[in-house]
Parts: sequence; C-alpha cells; structure tokens
Amino acid sequence: MALIVQKYGGTSMGSLERIEHVCRKVASFVEQGHQVVVVVSAMSGETDRLLKLAKGINPKGSEREYDQIASTGEQVTIGLLALALEKHGVKARSYTGPQVTIKTDSSFMKARILSIDADKLLADCKAGIVPVVAGFQGIAPDGSTATLGRGGSDTTGVAIAAALKADECQIYTDVDGVYTTDPRVEPKARRLDKITFEEMLEMASLGSKVLQIRSVEFAGKYKVPLRVLSTFVDGPGTLITLEDNKMEDALISGIAFAKDEAQLTVAGVPDRPGIAAAILGPIGDANIEVDMIVQNVGADGTTDFTFTVHRNDLEKAQDISTKVAKELGAKGVRAANDIVKVSLVGVGMRSHAGIASQMFKALAGANINIRMISTSEIKVSVVIEEMYLELAVRTLHKAFGLEEGGKVA
Amino acid sequence: MALIVQKYGGTSMGSLERIEHVCRKVASFVEQGHQVVVVVSAMSGETDRLLKLAKGINPKGSEREYDQIASTGEQVTIGLLALALEKHGVKARSYTGPQVTIKTDSSFMKARILSIDADKLLADCKAGIVPVVAGFQGIAPDGSTATLGRGGSDTTGVAIAAALKADECQIYTDVDGVYTTDPRVEPKARRLDKITFEEMLEMASLGSKVLQIRSVEFAGKYKVPLRVLSTFVDGPGTLITLEDNKMEDALISGIAFAKDEAQLTVAGVPDRPGIAAAILGPIGDANIEVDMIVQNVGADGTTDFTFTVHRNDLEKAQDISTKVAKELGAKGVRAANDIVKVSLVGVGMRSHAGIASQMFKALAGANINIRMISTSEIKVSVVIEEMYLELAVRTLHKAFGLEEGGKVA
Repeated sequence: MALIVQKYGGTSMGSLERIEHVCRKVASFVEQGHQVVVVVSAMSGETDRLLKLAKGINPKGSEREYDQIASTGEQVTIGLLALALEKHGVKARSYTGPQVTIKTDSSFMKARILSIDADKLLADCKAGIVPVVAGFQGIAPDGSTATLGRGGSDTTGVAIAAALKADECQIYTDVDGVYTTDPRVEPKARRLDKITFEEMLEMASLGSKVLQIRSVEFAGKYKVPLRVLSTFVDGPGTLITLEDNKMEDALISGIAFAKDEAQLTVAGVPDRPGIAAAILGPIGDANIEVDMIVQNVGADGTTDFTFTVHRNDLEKAQDISTKVAKELGAKGVRAANDIVKVSLVGVGMRSHAGIASQMFKALAGANINIRMISTSEIKVSVVIEEMYLELAVRTLHKAFGLEEGGKVA
Repeated sequence: MALIVQKYGGTSMGSLERIEHVCRKVASFVEQGHQVVVVVSAMSGETDRLLKLAKGINPKGSEREYDQIASTGEQVTIGLLALALEKHGVKARSYTGPQVTIKTDSSFMKARILSIDADKLLADCKAGIVPVVAGFQGIAPDGSTATLGRGGSDTTGVAIAAALKADECQIYTDVDGVYTTDPRVEPKARRLDKITFEEMLEMASLGSKVLQIRSVEFAGKYKVPLRVLSTFVDGPGTLITLEDNKMEDALISGIAFAKDEAQLTVAGVPDRPGIAAAILGPIGDANIEVDMIVQNVGADGTTDFTFTVHRNDLEKAQDISTKVAKELGAKGVRAANDIVKVSLVGVGMRSHAGIASQMFKALAGANINIRMISTSEIKVSVVIEEMYLELAVRTLHKAFGLEEGGKVA
C-alpha cells in the first residue's frame, strides 16, 4: 500500500466522459489498496474563457479579481470528480486551495506556495476518503484566493506530495512519458523509464513541454519521486527521480530543441571589462530574457558578443543592441531568426569526456554548420540553421544510441 | 450619507453589458456620497447550468459537492462587477461568502445564515472601497461552502444589511416595485410606495413573486428597511418597512392570487374531536403542503372538511383522503382543480370592521360564487372558480380604490 498523489490536467478533465474515465483510474488505484489524493486542473479551455470574460470587462483590472474569477474553473472540476467517485462507490471529498489550506504569498496570478496544511488530507486518507484538491490555487495572507499562474496544477500536485510525504506524485497528461526526443521529429524516439530531476529540468526548459519547470524544481528540492503518465494509454510512464548508480550507464538521456530562438551578435566590441554588462543590462531592463550567451576573446583587441533571445523579442533586442553598439564603438549588430538550438542532455556526460566532440563530429558528418556552442555539466547545446533541425536531431539520436533498441554507450 | 446594501439578481448580472449597467448604478450612489455594499447573484441561467453538469455526472451525489460547484456562479459575477467598478474609477473588492465570513449551518443546498462578520465590510466602507459580496452562499462549520438554496441572494442582502446596521437594503429586480395586484391581470394596478413586512409576507406567499419570503421574514425580524426597485427603470420602488401611523389610512394594500391550488372536500364526516388530525395527518406524512383549511359545524352531526393543496399534489392527496374518508365513515371526497385563491391584504383591516363583507358584496355584485373563505388579521382569502379570476381581481381592485388615482378609503 502506497500513498500516491495523482494530478490530472485540463485535457483529462475536458468533458463529463473524460472525468468518468479519470474516476475509473483513481478507483482502480483505491481498489488496489493505495491511498490516493487527487489534484485536478480546470476543464481545458475554461480558465481561458473565464479570463477572457474578466478582461472583457476590464483589461487592466486588479489581479486579485482575475484570480477570484479564474479559480472557479478548478472548483467545478473537483466537485464533478468527487461526485463521479461517489457514484462509483468511492468515498471522496473536494477541496479548493483555500479549503485545504494551501497558503501562498500575495503575488496574484503567479503566487508561490508557502505551506500546505496536511491534516485534513491525511485524516481523509486514513478514513478511506479520496481528497480531490483544486490545482493552481491557494489562499493569500489576506484571505483572498490566489492562483499559481498557468500550469500551476503540476506544482500543487508536487507540493501536496511533499507535504504528505507521499510515495509518488503521478502527473497524468496526454503523452505516455518523457521521450529521448520529440517523436514528431524522430519517430524512433524512445520513452525513458527513468530520468533525473536535473535532466528533466534541462529537457523541459529546452522545449520538451511535458511538465512545468517549477514543479520539477519543487520535486527535486523535496525529493518527491515524480512520474509522468498518460491518462488515456496504460503504461509505466517515466519516473523522474534522484540520480542512482544505474543511471550512470547512460551517457545521454535525450535530445531537446528549441525553435523559437533568435540570435544577436554585437561584432567588433572593444575587449574590455564590463562589456557583457553594458550590452545585457539594457536588454534585461527591457524585460527581455536572454538564453545562451557566448563571448570569444578577439585577436585584434575586439570581441564578438553573441546571445540568443525569444524570437518575439528579436526586433526590440536588436534596436537596443544597435544603440548600445554605437555607444561602445562596436562595428555593428548582426541578427538571425532562422536558427534553432539543439541540446544533448544527460547526467552521464559529467563523468565522460568527449561527449561534446563526439556531438560536433556527428554534426560535421551530416554537413551541419554550428553557429554557437554552450555547455553545462549535463548539457551541450549548439545553435544551427533551422533547416537542419530534423537532420541534426536524427543524426544525434542515432550517434548516441538513443533509438528504440539502440546501443547504450 | 447613508450606508446602503444593494442586491442585484441574476437578470441584472446576465451579461457584461448588464454588469456595466449595474456598475454605473452603484457608482452613482457612491458619487452621491453613500457607502455601498453590493450583493450579487450568478448570471441568470448559470446556477442551473452548473447543477445540470453536477447532476449529469451523479444525480444522487452529496449536496456538499453540488454546493461546491454551484457556488462558483456568484464567485464569477462578484469578480466581474468589482473589475467593472475599478474600471469606472470606484475602488472595489469582491468577497465570496466564506471570505466575508458568512457562517451558515450544515444544511447544504438550503443552509441558513448563523452569523456574519461585519469587520471586513465595514473597514472597506470606511476606506472608500465598495465590497461586492457573493449572494446565496456561506461557510459551513466544517469549512465547506454551503449555499442558501435558490433565491438565497435576497436573504444574503438582508442579512448583511442587518449585520452592518445599514440604513436600507435595496433589492434590484426586473420590476419597479410591489403593485396593488398583478398588472397583467389589472392594467390599472398601482405601484405601492410603502408596504409593511407583514403585508409583504402575505403578498409574497400568495403569489406576487417579487421577493423571497425568507428575506422578508429576516428583514422584519431585524427591522431592516427593504426597498424593491428596478435595475433597468429609475424610480423610488416600494419601501417595505415597519408599520407607521400613516399607513393605517389605507385599508387594503393589494390583491394577491394563486392559480396553482386545488380543493378537496371530505363530505359528511362524523363531527367529533380529532377529525382534522385524522384527515391532515396522512397528508402531511406524504409531504404534501396544505394551504387553506375550513371546517363547518354541521347540523346533522356531520361536517364538511375542506382544504387546498398544490395542484401537482391533488391526485396523491385525493387517494389518501378517499382512504381516510372510508375509515372515518364519511360520505365521500370531492375534488376540484379549476379553482383559484384571491386575497385582500392590508394591515388597515385590523382596525376596520366590514372589510370581509364589503369584499363578499363586491364579488356577489359581479355574480362570482365564493366556494371557500379564510381570514387572518391582515388578509381575507376566498376560493372561486378559475374562470372568474380576472373579473374578481378587477372588481376588488376597483371596489377598494386601488387603481391609479383611485380613492383611498
């Protein structure tokens, strides 16, 4: 018998039929003798509908009121799932975030969880009742309802699992696990049985949008074993957990990529201290997020300073950079938005030299030119031309033996 | 400067345009220097939609979960109205029932208000903030959200007015006040400027469905002046208040009627103690509500026992009565469902003799046969054939000088 927190997203709760399907899944775990706490999102589309209503009446209204309205989406689905479970003969009880109590800070629409009162939930579990908790919301210090921001239901699930010291937090989505890469790009992509929190963070932030980053950080911090599974297809899913010895066998866990980046190069900048700050300061002030940053030491007393931003921010970032370039006496600014970032991710590479060079060699073998390189302990990222994305992913997937039945380095 | 509680119903909140209209009404009171607390219903149709969803998944689910779901309707409208007020430059803050705090008992779906914490609302008023409170809901002793039952928003308005010792509780509806009778039956019906709580109770329970009975009882008990006004047409509405000397000038305030009644007579019952209980006991046990009850002393040692029930209950009540009649050795049971009840209501009749006979004379003058009579301190009701309803109402309306510009007795 285990204590399991299960989180079902908006697609899983999208209709009465789907809610009944989720009900049967929950019931089957209860029948197996497990204690289950369920966390649910609003029906897919409902939060958007509510916010549209709110912004229709006042586009610049206070975020507290937006939260008052948006938080009703989950309040409906918790009630519906509790009713479905009752009908199925499973005792259940729904809780809004404030009812649990899930305490948050006062940052409406992007609140952070401060603490969770586990008492009611544990008492229910002991009494054979399945608590059904609204994701995405909690109670601010002044008693108002606050939402955690979009996708916050994953975080609610993990935070509750941490508070209850649950054996596992299961996140049910419409994919059946975490893959070595996007199966739409490489059909031979393979579902991973296990992946570490760190790897998952790199995979998520690099574009494999299976889980909310914050929930993975949270799970890693509180050491909550996290499992990603499909609501609609049975299977073991992917377990996201702490590193263990067995994992070190695999050099690379997966290949992530991001298509929405753009590259800016401030060329011929006088090579003196403070250059990076001079260029990136105004970019940050304009609320533009910078991803990769590369600076080469120049030969002629100048240097090329290159960084990537979200494609939507390119124009704004280019304007700012051009102004800064003039002030610095740089030669000019080059921009490119037909680029993508491809990353190898794996905790195994920490203890193995040569992963980067093996990667560059494979790409060279496919005649793919690398425009930018950035590395971390468990990741090597390259920027290449967008037209080579699929080729690069497939080449690397093969080179590192990630395919179905492929070699394990 | 007055402290006013305003309650707006579902029709008034039925669309973003209507919410903006309500916003302008509230704002105009604030601009006049009043302190305003607003209570709102869900958008019209929304509570039904939510309950249909809930019953679709489990028609026999627990009422706590129905309330969890149904209470979201008001949570959306309070947020929307607060946003509209903000946009209009009026400081506002929305509160659910639990947030206020409005404490109720545990009777989910028909909870009763136990107490209201006035502190937050008064503090807001003092700070120039308009609190916008969800009607129809509160928090049960175990922390669950409970609803007051349909129409409970009126009661919320009155209860808040009582807790705040407000100068007036204004109930905005789609009619512009309480009329001497239904204007669809008598076009000369006149809006009343004032009516007492007792009269309003008789008017409401007799079929003039302007206000929820419970809210009128509540207002009378706590002496909260209640005003019924139209959201859509400006005007003074009707003030429902305590009796004052001026009121005694008017004998009759209005004429109410009920079309959904049916009449049952147990004829020739042996006239002995316990007859009423013997007949009505089994009716009550079957959860059938009885309205009028009349028993005549008979000449031959038997009596005719007559009562009225809701038309929907006639068949069931007739079956029960027939069985009881046999046991009692009565002559038989007669049923009629083509009847209506017409009532004269007025506190003035307490101190004036002859109202009843004046009423019977007027009806006789129009050749309307009276089948049954029942009187109370401030009401005379007669049962007549349904086909005479309009004629009876108009005849009495004229006879008692209720029409526009009519005489005041």
